[in-house]
Amino acid sequence: MSRDYSLGEIATHLAAQLRGNPEIRITGLNSLKNAGAGQISFLSNPKYASQLSICNAEAVMLTAEQAESYSGDCLILANPYLAYAKLSSWFDPAPQQVSGTHPSAVVHPSALVKDDVYLGPNVVVEAGAVLASGCRIEANSFIGARAVLGQHCHISANVTLYHDIVIGDRVRVHSGTVIGADGFGFAPDGDEGYQKIHQIGSVEIGDNVEIGACTTIDRGALENTIIGNGVIIDNHVQIAHNVVIGDNSALAAYSGLAGSATLGANCTLAGSACVVGHISICDNVILTARTLATKNITKPGVYSSSVTSALPSLEWRKNAARMSQLDSMARRLKELEKKQK
Amino acid sequence: MSRDYSLGEIATHLAAQLRGNPEIRITGLNSLKNAGAGQISFLSNPKYASQLSICNAEAVMLTAEQAESYSGDCLILANPYLAYAKLSSWFDPAPQQVSGTHPSAVVHPSALVKDDVYLGPNVVVEAGAVLASGCRIEANSFIGARAVLGQHCHISANVTLYHDIVIGDRVRVHSGTVIGADGFGFAPDGDEGYQKIHQIGSVEIGDNVEIGACTTIDRGALENTIIGNGVIIDNHVQIAHNVVIGDNSALAAYSGLAGSATLGANCTLAGSACVVGHISICDNVILTARTLATKNITKPGVYSSSVTSALPSLEWRKNAARMSQLDSMARRLKELEKKQK
Amino acid sequence: MSRDYSLGEIATHLAAQLRGNPEIRITGLNSLKNAGAGQISFLSNPKYASQLSICNAEAVMLTAEQAESYSGDCLILANPYLAYAKLSSWFDPAPQQVSGTHPSAVVHPSALVKDDVYLGPNVVVEAGAVLASGCRIEANSFIGARAVLGQHCHISANVTLYHDIVIGDRVRVHSGTVIGADGFGFAPDGDEGYQKIHQIGSVEIGDNVEIGACTTIDRGALENTIIGNGVIIDNHVQIAHNVVIGDNSALAAYSGLAGSATLGANCTLAGSACVVGHISICDNVILTARTLATKNITKPGVYSSSVTSALPSLEWRKNAARMSQLDSMARRLKELEKKQK
Repeated sequence: MSRDYSLGEIATHLAAQLRGNPEIRITGLNSLKNAGAGQISFLSNPKYASQLSICNAEAVMLTAEQAESYSGDCLILANPYLAYAKLSSWFDPAPQQVSGTHPSAVVHPSALVKDDVYLGPNVVVEAGAVLASGCRIEANSFIGARAVLGQHCHISANVTLYHDIVIGDRVRVHSGTVIGADGFGFAPDGDEGYQKIHQIGSVEIGDNVEIGACTTIDRGALENTIIGNGVIIDNHVQIAHNVVIGDNSALAAYSGLAGSATLGANCTLAGSACVVGHISICDNVILTARTLATKNITKPGVYSSSVTSALPSLEWRKNAARMSQLDSMARRLKELEKKQK
Repeated sequence: MSRDYSLGEIATHLAAQLRGNPEIRITGLNSLKNAGAGQISFLSNPKYASQLSICNAEAVMLTAEQAESYSGDCLILANPYLAYAKLSSWFDPAPQQVSGTHPSAVVHPSALVKDDVYLGPNVVVEAGAVLASGCRIEANSFIGARAVLGQHCHISANVTLYHDIVIGDRVRVHSGTVIGADGFGFAPDGDEGYQKIHQIGSVEIGDNVEIGACTTIDRGALENTIIGNGVIIDNHVQIAHNVVIGDNSALAAYSGLAGSATLGANCTLAGSACVVGHISICDNVILTARTLATKNITKPGVYSSSVTSALPSLEWRKNAARMSQLDSMARRLKELEKKQK
Repeated sequence: MSRDYSLGEIATHLAAQLRGNPEIRITGLNSLKNAGAGQISFLSNPKYASQLSICNAEAVMLTAEQAESYSGDCLILANPYLAYAKLSSWFDPAPQQVSGTHPSAVVHPSALVKDDVYLGPNVVVEAGAVLASGCRIEANSFIGARAVLGQHCHISANVTLYHDIVIGDRVRVHSGTVIGADGFGFAPDGDEGYQKIHQIGSVEIGDNVEIGACTTIDRGALENTIIGNGVIIDNHVQIAHNVVIGDNSALAAYSGLAGSATLGANCTLAGSACVVGHISICDNVILTARTLATKNITKPGVYSSSVTSALPSLEWRKNAARMSQLDSMARRLKELEKKQK
């Protein structure tokens, strides 16, 4: 919790070239605009280059080129934004719980919990669950029967992991998130309404996955729902049963995949971008905000649908009302063109 | 937990005609493609009929017609998909908690909890709540004051049921879901901002309702929010105050109804389909994915709005930019047509 | 819990002119249509004026003008809807927990909890947290290290407040909501996938803020995410890192702001209305349901995008398919007009 490092230590950590005094003490990390005494900053967006000359940071992370126009202490490296990311954990104020089980935690005797695991107050670990070395489970979270967590997973407070799910190493799950709830599967039964299809598959999550708050990943109907390695998932994301997501894809808030959809590797779903059920999106696809993919996408690229620029409402409505005539307009236009010839 | 049945037992359960050896042991349920020794499967989608000849299932559920082209052991019935649904509970690995109250549960002395109810660790049951026979409340869930749950309700971990809500029999609620929070009601008070309207109604939920994870059903402002029998609700669904939903309607993920909207019976809201406040949708209406209903719908049918196919973004933007000219285009087209005559 | 008041008491509370018997006992509050013996009602929407003559309420809140055509007991005031809002708390059945700490609550010895605070069962309060006078924290909620709550905050069950967040006075937070989870910040690291950016900022929330269920407000990357005074937030809302929201703005369900977006004061985001990252919306802007703001808005007013009226699906699809030709149509129309001249 001291968060007091020498500039030299930081340079070594980042494999950066240090220009200036390695003994300077660095006690904080901040934006160029707000950094003050004792704080290190960085320049990533060229838009902010002008802030460099007037910044009060103790030291700045810069590219070699940027450093030429800066006279203060600095760390020189290829990618200051990446360096900022790598350094950020050194200044994270989040509590680092020591290992041990809080007396109020309820751990089934058949669960396998490594000695160095932290189990916070009221954590519940059910029969046969396995928590590997370095896991931290915060207060009031629930680990279902036979769930398996790899090393150094960090589960925030009030998370629910259902029975039998399998999570890799270094997976981060934020509060309110639910992994392994039943997929939405029902068979119509005439006048009887719906017959529930019990979801007997599970969820498999790779290594180095980050999952935000209030996100849901449903268990599979028969086989498993699968999330690859290095996938990053924001808040309020919906991943339905039997979805498969490739490595290093990114899913922003409110994005979702319906049942049995497949998303390739290195894809990005921007906010509210969704994929309907049973379709497949290849690797390296970006869906822009609120795009709905209703058909397979087989070619890498950036795709959009549905969204138009916000207009004053009266103006929008006047135009939107014409949408129901668009097909007719297209036909009439063609007709006019024919006559013209 | 053994999950080992004879094919004969299964045939009896499903009222199916058995063709083959009733003594065969069935220990699993799987898709045609993945089923192996000891596993039963089913053919529902004709697309997969070709998988039948090469499948390794121990037995298959088929229609009489499908069975003609299959030589292995099978159960013959009218609707294999429905049969699969009915059988699925026999192979569900979810723990079936025995009745009893975990010592860490906190139950108010005035709560009425039937002897065979299961209350998991850290469950909180407040004053005057009623839990009928066969209810299972999993760890860390909260049952508010005077809430009433019918028989055989199953509430997963980390669920919140507010005070005074009433739930029927056999209702399933998944984790992270909140039932009975305040509806979003405020009266503008000039420069004072908003004056909260306390929500003094409640929520009534029928029998055989299934509710997914991270879903919210708000309590009514004055009267109750009402969910009919047999309604199935997915994850991240929003049901606002004083909504009324008819029997056997289905609401997929991110679908929602704003305040005082009414949805008929046997309706389907596909993913992200929403209904604005104070309007009414009749029985047997389907809103396709992301449709927004802004006016009453009085005729059964399938309705859509707003969504277009995903295009490469540059192409989309070029076309979307024309939306602000659509009304002008329509007028100009008409003008041309007039001149043509 | 008695909820039995004289009409005179109510008149005094609302500073209303009383016409009728001040000794009448009022034991409930209800709509004009449903109010019965002992209940008070109100007329706000002129649409319902006809219900006045046949209503069975014990007394009604009316404007002077409305009172002229009503012969029963009534309270006369300028704004009956606002009066209803002000009176609603008197009839709220929600339990009013007495102060005190439930024995199952886990409170770190370094936390500062005022004597009159209510901490429900299994509440966890971590090191250094501060709970001011009159706070009520319901069951199974989590207050992170050094979080600070002002006076008379009311936190429902199963809420998660992360470390270091700061909340003003009289803030209401509903169940399932998560405040202070990490913002969605990652730096691409080539073949290594994403490098997490630890979120070392926090969240600051003003006074008199109401936050619904299953809503997320992320902590800032370097500086804080900021919510002004009097802001009202519905369920399933997403407020990303470093968003700034002005006083008395209203955010309906599923609305959201992406990272570093700024929303002015007195704005309204209707359901599903979203704002993309790094843009700025000025004061007094309304975004209608499902509008996506992709550019700065600098002029007060009502804005819309993307949404069209629901049509029968076949009709919608026929028209929507033409969207990919809209730019071409616009060009061809212009061409025809040229020839016409």
